Amino acid sequence: MRLYIGLIHYPVYNKNHEKVASAITNFDIHDISRLARTYGVKRFFIVTPLQDQQRFAERIRNHWINGFGADYNEDRKEAIELLDIAPSLEDVFQRIAESEEENPLLIATDASEQRDKLISYPEAIDVLMKNKVILLLFGTAWGLHDELIDRADYILEPIKGNTDYNHLSVRTAAGIILDRLTGRCY
Amino acid sequence: MRLYIGLIHYPVYNKNHEKVASAITNFDIHDISRLARTYGVKRFFIVTPLQDQQRFAERIRNHWINGFGADYNEDRKEAIELLDIAPSLEDVFQRIAESEEENPLLIATDASEQRDKLISYPEAIDVLMKNKVILLLFGTAWGLHDELIDRADYILEPIKGNTDYNHLSVRTAAGIILDRLTGRCY
Repeated sequence: MRLYIGLIHYPVYNKNHEKVASAITNFDIHDISRLARTYGVKRFFIVTPLQDQQRFAERIRNHWINGFGADYNEDRKEAIELLDIAPSLEDVFQRIAESEEENPLLIATDASEQRDKLISYPEAIDVLMKNKVILLLFGTAWGLHDELIDRADYILEPIKGNTDYNHLSVRTAAGIILDRLTGRCY
Repeated sequence: MRLYIGLIHYPVYNKNHEKVASAITNFDIHDISRLARTYGVKRFFIVTPLQDQQRFAERIRNHWINGFGADYNEDRKEAIELLDIAPSLEDVFQRIAESEEENPLLIATDASEQRDKLISYPEAIDVLMKNKVILLLFGTAWGLHDELIDRADYILEPIKGNTDYNHLSVRTAAGIILDRLTGRCY
């Protein structure tokens, strides 16, 4: 499986639907690294153009890989080792293309159903099973900016529970999506 | 569906396998409330015997239901309204039994496979579909103490990704488990 994850902090929407760079959430780093490690994701990229935010993520990464955390919790180290920090989607795309010698398919995630290019879970699983390189994009704050949605090859169908409410955290949504894409169906 | 969630802060294990009361994590409250609302859970109980911790959870609840948060984010309010705070599992059990006029089945979650009373996802879905009252228990810190595991009617089979790593956060695990129990299979 050649699956990559990008957690996008720019460009995303804020509450007023303005284009912003969001701040990194420490819990996103930990929860999504552990998730990525559990489900065999090849690399988890935190994407932000803000240098102080890049340094913040680097500090956390170093703490768990080389610092006190590495001895304190080896399981955590093993998860955080999947983490990389990148200034832009272009940079992530380039790095994956180089190491895989193939351009990744961009699959964006979004809570809205009003989208072109929707791909269902069975279709996305099919693409994964064919060993295509996939970069799955998650938005922070109020979601991925349309610029990125427009660049994506596909938009994954939104998660529906059994109510009309769909305001999951990106951490929870990422867990459900990874389980659906790579877990067994029973 | 008559599904309840309990997030247990005592008795749980710490890193050294000692019985402790863990501290409440703010992100657990938000992520799991939103999850519960998305998947039609009837009530989400934070369980802790520590009074300062109960007050902490109450303050968060009030902020989003009556305070500034209620105007700022109505979606959050709708989720946090499912939240209740209880001193013990006994108390939660009693409250559910009274309102449902039926004792809930206790289903514990645990990352270990070395358990009696394991129930598979299809079996658990079957119980839910029969409209039984279920209280699903999640442990914080290093997991539910054996006291609670022993009290449970069933232990839900552990989440496996496609690796041998299984150190998900309780927030992520709860998301995956709710989606599996109540979502569609495709």
